[in-house]
Amino acid sequence: MINISIPPLCSQSQNEAEAHMNSLAKPPHSLGKLEKIVAQIAGMQGKSIPTSQDKAVVLFGSDHHIMKHNVSATSSKVTQQQMRNFVEGGATINAFTSAAGARLSVVDIAVDYDLSKTKGIINKKVMWGARDFSEEPAMTREEAIACVQAGIDMALAEKAKGLDLVAAGEMGIGNTSPSSAIIAVLTGAPVETVTGRGSGVNQETIDKKIKLIQKAIHLHKPNPQDALDILSKVGGPEIGAMAGLMLGAASQRVPTVVDGVIAGAAAGIAIGINPAVKDYLIGSHTSAEPAHQIIMKHIGVELYLDFGMCLGEGTGAALFFPIIDAAVRTMHTMKTFSELNDF
Amino acid sequence: MINISIPPLCSQSQNEAEAHMNSLAKPPHSLGKLEKIVAQIAGMQGKSIPTSQDKAVVLFGSDHHIMKHNVSATSSKVTQQQMRNFVEGGATINAFTSAAGARLSVVDIAVDYDLSKTKGIINKKVMWGARDFSEEPAMTREEAIACVQAGIDMALAEKAKGLDLVAAGEMGIGNTSPSSAIIAVLTGAPVETVTGRGSGVNQETIDKKIKLIQKAIHLHKPNPQDALDILSKVGGPEIGAMAGLMLGAASQRVPTVVDGVIAGAAAGIAIGINPAVKDYLIGSHTSAEPAHQIIMKHIGVELYLDFGMCLGEGTGAALFFPIIDAAVRTMHTMKTFSELNDF
Repeated sequence: MINISIPPLCSQSQNEAEAHMNSLAKPPHSLGKLEKIVAQIAGMQGKSIPTSQDKAVVLFGSDHHIMKHNVSATSSKVTQQQMRNFVEGGATINAFTSAAGARLSVVDIAVDYDLSKTKGIINKKVMWGARDFSEEPAMTREEAIACVQAGIDMALAEKAKGLDLVAAGEMGIGNTSPSSAIIAVLTGAPVETVTGRGSGVNQETIDKKIKLIQKAIHLHKPNPQDALDILSKVGGPEIGAMAGLMLGAASQRVPTVVDGVIAGAAAGIAIGINPAVKDYLIGSHTSAEPAHQIIMKHIGVELYLDFGMCLGEGTGAALFFPIIDAAVRTMHTMKTFSELNDF
Repeated sequence: MINISIPPLCSQSQNEAEAHMNSLAKPPHSLGKLEKIVAQIAGMQGKSIPTSQDKAVVLFGSDHHIMKHNVSATSSKVTQQQMRNFVEGGATINAFTSAAGARLSVVDIAVDYDLSKTKGIINKKVMWGARDFSEEPAMTREEAIACVQAGIDMALAEKAKGLDLVAAGEMGIGNTSPSSAIIAVLTGAPVETVTGRGSGVNQETIDKKIKLIQKAIHLHKPNPQDALDILSKVGGPEIGAMAGLMLGAASQRVPTVVDGVIAGAAAGIAIGINPAVKDYLIGSHTSAEPAHQIIMKHIGVELYLDFGMCLGEGTGAALFFPIIDAAVRTMHTMKTFSELNDF
């Protein structure tokens, strides 16, 4: 069991934020959807003037033994290589967090490689890769809970450093397979509809992915009403940790910007654990993976950017940080129309 | 006549940029449209590794005597108030340029108020507001040329400070009317299709705007093949200066990020003056003004963001700066897949 208390949105802060936004020196509602996002964040943070200065991407790495069936165009060893690349600053997410003025925290939740000596990687290892869910459950229920708890703990640790906005990122070669499986179970969509190209596989490999996911769902019969059952049977450790991060952030009134398909699956799990977390989620980009729009529509989280990206790592969410930041800054620095009359 | 030489795109830089992007440690093409934008900028700048560090919004202010017919919900005096607000940092564009790490240059091209003593405003005043185009041409051809030239001069002055990306912003109560008029003439679209709510007018005022624009086009018969004729008869000084900025930037191999409907009209004028400028334009957001998509489709410039914004000042373009910046940074900081193998 995961026990986490999530406060309701503060409607007073939200109303005060809307009133302040309407008083600013610009045509009313001329920032369109950005004004709605600012008011939502005010309600989440419980601040009539919301803040966006402290931003973090918390990235969880995990391997997936479903990869013994070669369901990705990329080799499993890339998981640990990229984990080390993240702390050296050489990955896409580093360029994006740097452009956004955000920090990146890199967490080993279940990489199948000893990273305990690699400086900068936070060790929360629960296991050495998810088990091959086409043969056995990916995790035990206890392991799944440990992953979610690690994500909650990371949210609390980040909050202690100061945290206005957060995003959950991931690295895990093979992890679009558990994401598709989770989304199929949560939404009831056919497996073939929610299974995509991942990091760039061909049609033959997609067909194999579909068959393995169908086999796993048939074999383990995850209960759609029990998020931890889904997570443990056909999910992945990083997906559990990402769900935990969202839950932990919401418990602290910190909004989570949701990345692409893997983050979408994690959001679905988080909502299954505690539905109140949904109010603390902000959509970002639309992934090129077909399952992404299906899960985001299912959980009712709006998407704003569409560049046809499918990279992972939290990159789509990090790309949305500066846009939120620009909108939130108007609340701090803009003059009101009545102040303008003093000119 | 405006004589300005614009170099062709550098296809070698563009090809080298694509090759470098494809070598980076990420699934091929996983940044989607961002990869295309990076390659385009490489071709514009003539650098296989493009740069995005120095960014500026150059904002041109002008009044419009068409406002004596009250075609805006806002009073004309707001033009000069906002011009002073820009240099004090209290407007939306200040929040957005600050979030983007861009500078803002504020230029008086035709404000109907003496701003020559206001510190920080660059004085390029050509006239004291565009004339009421429902009765007489908005400008003489000589005045229109002077406005375009002022924009070119600003591009050269910004380039001298170091300039990787630029956007043209504007402040001019009433300036959606000349923008709609220009777009109607350039595209052949009916005036009623390209005339919108501007800063928030009611249907009665929109009907009045439509009639005034129709009257002006009927009266002055601007030649659709002669951009300076359109600009002088039914345009506006800031629109001419924005067109000049785009031309001047292109002459220096600097990409212009195009803002909303007024910038779109300016882009149409710039292309009319020298079609080669089109290769140096990057779209940003889709304005809520209906004419915007019509002109951007007409000139063939793709749009990427859609928040339903209609604020002006260059805000939509400034919002896109950090996204371009994030994409360009990958070219500077990312390891290649072959470097990853050394881990």
